[in-house]
Amino acid sequence: MARKAAIVGGGVIGGGWTARFLLNGWDVGVFDPDPQAERKISEVLANARAALPALSDVPMPPEGKLTFHGTIGEAVEGAEYVQESVSERIELKHRVYAQLQQANPGVLIGSSTSGFKATDLQQGSPAPENIIVAHPFNPVYLLPLSEISGSEKNTEATVQKTVQIMKDIGMFPLVIRHEIDAFIGNRFLEAVWREALWMLKDGIATTEEIDEAIRMGFGLRWGQMGLFETYRIAGGEAGMKHFMAQFGPALKWPWTKLMDVPEFNDELVELVSSQSDAQSGMYSIRELERIRDQNLVGFLRSLKDRNWGAGKVLREHDEARAAAFHAEMQKGIDTGPKAAPLVMAQMQVLPGWIDYNGHMTESRYYFANSETVDNFLRLIGAGMDYVAAGQSFYSAETHIRHLGEAKLGDRIRGELQIISADEKRFRSFVRIMKDDECVATIEQVCLHVDMKAGKSSRAAPEVWAKLQAIAEAHASLPLPEGAGRAVGQKR
Amino acid sequence: MARKAAIVGGGVIGGGWTARFLLNGWDVGVFDPDPQAERKISEVLANARAALPALSDVPMPPEGKLTFHGTIGEAVEGAEYVQESVSERIELKHRVYAQLQQANPGVLIGSSTSGFKATDLQQGSPAPENIIVAHPFNPVYLLPLSEISGSEKNTEATVQKTVQIMKDIGMFPLVIRHEIDAFIGNRFLEAVWREALWMLKDGIATTEEIDEAIRMGFGLRWGQMGLFETYRIAGGEAGMKHFMAQFGPALKWPWTKLMDVPEFNDELVELVSSQSDAQSGMYSIRELERIRDQNLVGFLRSLKDRNWGAGKVLREHDEARAAAFHAEMQKGIDTGPKAAPLVMAQMQVLPGWIDYNGHMTESRYYFANSETVDNFLRLIGAGMDYVAAGQSFYSAETHIRHLGEAKLGDRIRGELQIISADEKRFRSFVRIMKDDECVATIEQVCLHVDMKAGKSSRAAPEVWAKLQAIAEAHASLPLPEGAGRAVGQKR
Repeated sequence: MARKAAIVGGGVIGGGWTARFLLNGWDVGVFDPDPQAERKISEVLANARAALPALSDVPMPPEGKLTFHGTIGEAVEGAEYVQESVSERIELKHRVYAQLQQANPGVLIGSSTSGFKATDLQQGSPAPENIIVAHPFNPVYLLPLSEISGSEKNTEATVQKTVQIMKDIGMFPLVIRHEIDAFIGNRFLEAVWREALWMLKDGIATTEEIDEAIRMGFGLRWGQMGLFETYRIAGGEAGMKHFMAQFGPALKWPWTKLMDVPEFNDELVELVSSQSDAQSGMYSIRELERIRDQNLVGFLRSLKDRNWGAGKVLREHDEARAAAFHAEMQKGIDTGPKAAPLVMAQMQVLPGWIDYNGHMTESRYYFANSETVDNFLRLIGAGMDYVAAGQSFYSAETHIRHLGEAKLGDRIRGELQIISADEKRFRSFVRIMKDDECVATIEQVCLHVDMKAGKSSRAAPEVWAKLQAIAEAHASLPLPEGAGRAVGQKR
Repeated sequence: MARKAAIVGGGVIGGGWTARFLLNGWDVGVFDPDPQAERKISEVLANARAALPALSDVPMPPEGKLTFHGTIGEAVEGAEYVQESVSERIELKHRVYAQLQQANPGVLIGSSTSGFKATDLQQGSPAPENIIVAHPFNPVYLLPLSEISGSEKNTEATVQKTVQIMKDIGMFPLVIRHEIDAFIGNRFLEAVWREALWMLKDGIATTEEIDEAIRMGFGLRWGQMGLFETYRIAGGEAGMKHFMAQFGPALKWPWTKLMDVPEFNDELVELVSSQSDAQSGMYSIRELERIRDQNLVGFLRSLKDRNWGAGKVLREHDEARAAAFHAEMQKGIDTGPKAAPLVMAQMQVLPGWIDYNGHMTESRYYFANSETVDNFLRLIGAGMDYVAAGQSFYSAETHIRHLGEAKLGDRIRGELQIISADEKRFRSFVRIMKDDECVATIEQVCLHVDMKAGKSSRAAPEVWAKLQAIAEAHASLPLPEGAGRAVGQKR
């Protein structure tokens, strides 16, 4: 049975949490008295569905069930976790917790607050140990950070349970060791925000110039290493101490106006918003969201390729889910393979996959085939471990037919049929399907290789046994139309 | 003749500038009295060579000539631009400028200073108008930002000349409208640095936790949108004013310790450096540099795919260089095509192209073919404009043979031979070459398509004329070994 989370407060943040839980297979019960809540959440969810699955190399679990409720009590029924994202008013939060804890005593409550400490949130609660801060960053369905901040009333077990739930939905829980206002992330955001407001007010730079200064320079560094690791490099071979010695004195220089706070008045608001309109007004907020999401997907995918930073979190999350997925597939094989092509991969056409025509670019069909074949190799026991031990299947040649078109956002799947196999090679025929339409076929011969010897060899007996069983089951399938074709051959 | 820049001061920053100019085809004369300068610059250059070309989709120009000189006078001879990156001591900078201006009166001098204003730098100079700030961010060969800051003594022409030189080497010049200490970028870095030091000192978080808080959250946002555009989205449909109203009051909250500066003493230095060792000490600085560069290449490439932010800068730089490259290729065609395969693409195996075996992943051979064919289409007049006007060549089927292996960093090229062509289709045979080794062949049939009608059609007469001329020239070439093969066919 699916696990269940309750979401109280369904704005941009609550909606983001809803999407993250749902797409990770949890059921979600939402409570928000705003009559617009359902519409707002469905919009966030649409964005999330177009972006989050693009980070996964393992088919997503079936989406959980989303329900909206008229009372907090109904929403929290059967939930093991609540994410509270209501307005930053402490008395409102206290009221919400009282109702949650009455309806579902013992439920764990994480708060999205960026203004209150756990100690503040826990006041007046009969079970303060079950209330903790889990502070995310927008968009919640893409950015992994969740700052976990408890008080001395939270047990280690509660903290660890929260950490585990965050990991289960693919987040990076950062446990903050001492209770402080604004946790860690927002302290930096606040510092930069103040400095930026001064620059605007003093007419030094516009909102656009400030954004360019960030995203053309240090912003790119921070997305993958942060502050200290970046500076460690700047120190060069002499290291961090050298960097400190070099730049330490700047602390005393008059570089910043941070010692003072600009007056927050209508004039300042007008200045910022009119400049922001000039900079970004040509895009609607929805468009900006989609642009942002696609950029973030690009960053996160490239970090995932490198197994670094946030990309490492994605890989670990995949690995946890891959085990379950492959166990499921394995069951099907162990009970005897069927005479039907194997659905070995499910993918979505990503922003980086399309060409200037707006279609999935040709080489991505080959990529889709590789994903399909790689999953098949894992299935027959010739995955990463097998490669690490020095054996592998290498593709020798490949024939691709382009029969249709896939477009941005389309969901496609790879279905694999074994045409022939022996102990040293197999010939596969993969159909890339978009719903019932076959958009491409890929026929391929893969050779088994002893990587150390650098030559063709026999597969390990247990791998061959699985391959053979599937090949025998598939032998009764008709030879696919187009198999055995050469390029340019008449039909 | 190549343009020439002089580099005075050859540390990490000077070395980064050297690399950027050289790889963009400029000759570079370096002056640095440090006996280690040549070694240091060659190390930065090695990093740059492994990363910067990976951002380009147009073959890089031939590298400029790098020379080291014993005097400033020799280094600046024949240079149209000087980048000064010596230590932050004003009397040293003044001395350097005096020698530069004596040896090459009228030469434009940009300073990498982060501490001095143009007014400070210009003092005592006979030609203050030729001295300006051009402040870069490390690594200079990858990050596009160059903050251009002049004083009232600089003419608009000088500012524009600096801007143009920065664009010529692929940077994003940001002209700062008023002279301020630390320009824009470093003001933010300083604000964050102060807040970070407080957190460390107060034991709230370690260097590693702070880095995670940045790179798992807002750091990812900042690399592509910056501060204000991100907050514009956070304001939702109600926009920037709503965001300001919501978060403005936080300016008065006690979230930050920025009103005060932590004391800079040995204890603080020790705290930071020991935590940094624990966090990153398992990597050498060189390793961290390579990891950083590969991450940045990933970010920048994904922004380039989306034509957004720093990726837009890359595209514009490519376009400027593509025009020259294609004009050169065109000359070869206009003077009558030769009976030899066309070298249509030069590429480098990028970090994102390799599989778990460490080899160039299969689908990237198809990608390399697509790059080759796309450049060919541009050559015969069927490029982006042709597609925009509603006509295109679509690939119908493709046969790939994997004959060898390319590894990370290998330079490969795509050589194209036309096997047959008529007005409605052509059959191409591409060899992917690594030096003299053919690592893959790709045979393909492309059909000419009227995109509106959605069906096969005749190519425009001027396109067909070029295609036909090349096809006729190639008709005398022998049919390549492997052409016409089907998958699994016996040799």
